[in-house]
Amino acid sequence: MRLSTSAVFCLLGLLPCDRVIDAAPPPKANVIVIFADDLGYGDLGCYGSPTIRTPHLDRMAAEGLRFTDFYSASEVCTPSRAALLTGRYPIRSGMCGNRRVLFPSSKGGLPPEEITIAEALRDQGYATAHVGKWHLGIHEGSRPLDQGFQHSFGLPYSNDMDARSDLPRGATGSPNPPQDGWNVPLIRDGKIVEQPADQTTLTKRYTKEAVQFIRQQKDGSFFLYFAHTFPHVPMFASPAFKGKSRAGIYGDAVEELDWSVGQVLDALRTEGIADRTLVVFTSDNGPWLIMGDQGGSAGLLRDGKGSTWEGGMRVPGIAWMPGRIKPSVTSQRAGTLDLLPSALAIAGAPLPDKVPLDGVDLAPLLFAAQPLVERPYFYYRGDQIFACRLGEWKAHFKTQTGYGQPQAETHDPPLLFHLGRDASEKRNVAAAHADVLAEIQQAVKLHQSTIVPGVPQLQ
Amino acid sequence: MRLSTSAVFCLLGLLPCDRVIDAAPPPKANVIVIFADDLGYGDLGCYGSPTIRTPHLDRMAAEGLRFTDFYSASEVCTPSRAALLTGRYPIRSGMCGNRRVLFPSSKGGLPPEEITIAEALRDQGYATAHVGKWHLGIHEGSRPLDQGFQHSFGLPYSNDMDARSDLPRGATGSPNPPQDGWNVPLIRDGKIVEQPADQTTLTKRYTKEAVQFIRQQKDGSFFLYFAHTFPHVPMFASPAFKGKSRAGIYGDAVEELDWSVGQVLDALRTEGIADRTLVVFTSDNGPWLIMGDQGGSAGLLRDGKGSTWEGGMRVPGIAWMPGRIKPSVTSQRAGTLDLLPSALAIAGAPLPDKVPLDGVDLAPLLFAAQPLVERPYFYYRGDQIFACRLGEWKAHFKTQTGYGQPQAETHDPPLLFHLGRDASEKRNVAAAHADVLAEIQQAVKLHQSTIVPGVPQLQ
Repeated sequence: MRLSTSAVFCLLGLLPCDRVIDAAPPPKANVIVIFADDLGYGDLGCYGSPTIRTPHLDRMAAEGLRFTDFYSASEVCTPSRAALLTGRYPIRSGMCGNRRVLFPSSKGGLPPEEITIAEALRDQGYATAHVGKWHLGIHEGSRPLDQGFQHSFGLPYSNDMDARSDLPRGATGSPNPPQDGWNVPLIRDGKIVEQPADQTTLTKRYTKEAVQFIRQQKDGSFFLYFAHTFPHVPMFASPAFKGKSRAGIYGDAVEELDWSVGQVLDALRTEGIADRTLVVFTSDNGPWLIMGDQGGSAGLLRDGKGSTWEGGMRVPGIAWMPGRIKPSVTSQRAGTLDLLPSALAIAGAPLPDKVPLDGVDLAPLLFAAQPLVERPYFYYRGDQIFACRLGEWKAHFKTQTGYGQPQAETHDPPLLFHLGRDASEKRNVAAAHADVLAEIQQAVKLHQSTIVPGVPQLQ
Repeated sequence: MRLSTSAVFCLLGLLPCDRVIDAAPPPKANVIVIFADDLGYGDLGCYGSPTIRTPHLDRMAAEGLRFTDFYSASEVCTPSRAALLTGRYPIRSGMCGNRRVLFPSSKGGLPPEEITIAEALRDQGYATAHVGKWHLGIHEGSRPLDQGFQHSFGLPYSNDMDARSDLPRGATGSPNPPQDGWNVPLIRDGKIVEQPADQTTLTKRYTKEAVQFIRQQKDGSFFLYFAHTFPHVPMFASPAFKGKSRAGIYGDAVEELDWSVGQVLDALRTEGIADRTLVVFTSDNGPWLIMGDQGGSAGLLRDGKGSTWEGGMRVPGIAWMPGRIKPSVTSQRAGTLDLLPSALAIAGAPLPDKVPLDGVDLAPLLFAAQPLVERPYFYYRGDQIFACRLGEWKAHFKTQTGYGQPQAETHDPPLLFHLGRDASEKRNVAAAHADVLAEIQQAVKLHQSTIVPGVPQLQ
């Protein structure tokens, strides 16, 4: 039996049932998305890291639903974030292109007409906050307060941007002073409050902000988009974490991020709202492998950030709502594109009208362990489809390593891998499966027929 | 405060304390070693496999101590097994050499004068049993019953040996009949009971035998060495598991192995002896990467079986004894060489006299979370030291891929990797750490001065 989302929610008490008429309706469930930056598939204990200790995320996974096949919607930062907040492949919003991400000099940004999770939930009476990195535009119409967030505290873009060449760059993590050369501003509700931001205490200050917001909004419904700055380079950790991990400064930064997740979940427990708050933890793309000791690991997956091999786009994904989500591991394929439909379903909000969406509502999987409908997944690099997954099969039409391979290689016939038997994409079996390739090519064609590219924003 | 092992055991009730004089001494703790064949570091859920489901091993890990840095004592089968049972690098017993492993035509085997865990515990009144693969010799003096085991049921060597060329080999897992061409005998207490062994039901029959032994011996003390045949090629799974995993026949075999572990632990729980039975699960070496869909994964570690890169020798390692071992994850470096000293300490048995041992007693770590003494670890390939680990540092003097690279490459100066910051051994930092290299070379020299090579057995 397949239950409708609203029926599931009604049974679970997440949505008011009609027969509950003699009491004020309970507040709708809260939604928190915790988004790491450049964290790899293999960088958490519960995903097999031998060197980085992440007890809080491991506990979150043990208490919640851990996805083995969770995808970001892009292999780099800006498009991935646009997709998460809109539930749409970045090609639709114009938030992708040859320049890969937004830079401080870019004129574009997330178009005002795009509907974000924050806008949709705000319209349902949710309090909304953005904490952390933005990277979806610094001009009017694209900024956090323009895109549905009532509160915003964080960096406008990546922490390696806006560096001042007149300042000595210094070694990352150099204590004297630690932010040498880096000049990214820290912004609260549109106003710069510190420049350069002291990156050694960013995770701590973000966390304080997030916990404060949770405490203030505990009696109502809220949406918190908590997009960490780390473990993106340059890597910093506060004194309590610096030099403490086995894995160097990268490990220190991830262990502090893990601590931060623990603080957020503890606040929910303490306030007694854990069982009506969906928390999703994930990453914007795979690890930045060229960064040496400051880059993470995709575990057994091939390649990393910037590539459409699995390591570039398959990321940790954990959903938590104790008492509502049963502790489990799932191999159902899901991703950040699904967060908007899921959040809106939880809030009882209507889906945006006449806007093509690319995700599905995960609620039946999260709350009733029902399998998701089979659907293809498209690996975009910029505005091009490089690969497509259908079931366990993945076809690559083009490949290019994360950073370093100057040009993409085109494959005709495409490469074909079975991600179940060959998670590391080592054995091309295209020759034996022409039927699968044909099916995938058909799916790509169908998808492309629905695409009206947005005005390119990453110029 | 560092407690002696006997003091720890006394406190824990694992050994009789002198003042307990008015009652029969409780039976000494049992020891079970479950040994997988060619299982890779990345092949279990709790070590990050996205495709193989291992709920029983995951539970064992969650209830016990999971090692991130657990090593087999060789990169291939026979030497690894000799080292586990004797607590000595294979060079000392002669159980290594250019031929890598024993073959059915080999004249050698584990020398009778070697002292195995089974012999030492039998002398303490333990019942002893071997179930599964042996691969330490088929001639008098080397067989299970000659080496301290009172019961033995299993294969004399690998399941791909002894193939009969007059039989069609057939595809592995071919149902008609499944063992086409493979001709390995199944032996009980020295007598062939089936040839060819029906490999589709081996794991099931091994498990039945192991559980039966546990039930029979539940009131005394026992040592069970349960050395699985799988996931060594050719891969088989029983009908209940075949075709059930995401990861093809390899995943099916590992999932059946996981089921088997669950059966053993359940028997201990049911018989009420879980809290006085130490169970250690590990693998003889890394995954056989050249086997395609029938090979496993070393996760983020480099290379696999046959090589002294981490993927060849670092393996899953889980220790379980509910109520005695606290649930935790440890990055302390340990390995199969430590099992003999640990088992003997648990049994209150004296260490073999005048025999150089290469392991340490893990009891202080297992039962009291005390760190182990820092000591170097030597990666042998055959009778040569290819690499050495000291703390987080690993130096390679020679490297050779698992199977395929025809000759070893010599490195002078050696390659140097930091396994904390670079678990995948990607970034050679030898140039910046001459002092570390010198210290490692000193450790190798000291170790070599203690080595009296045994008479070569693998001719």
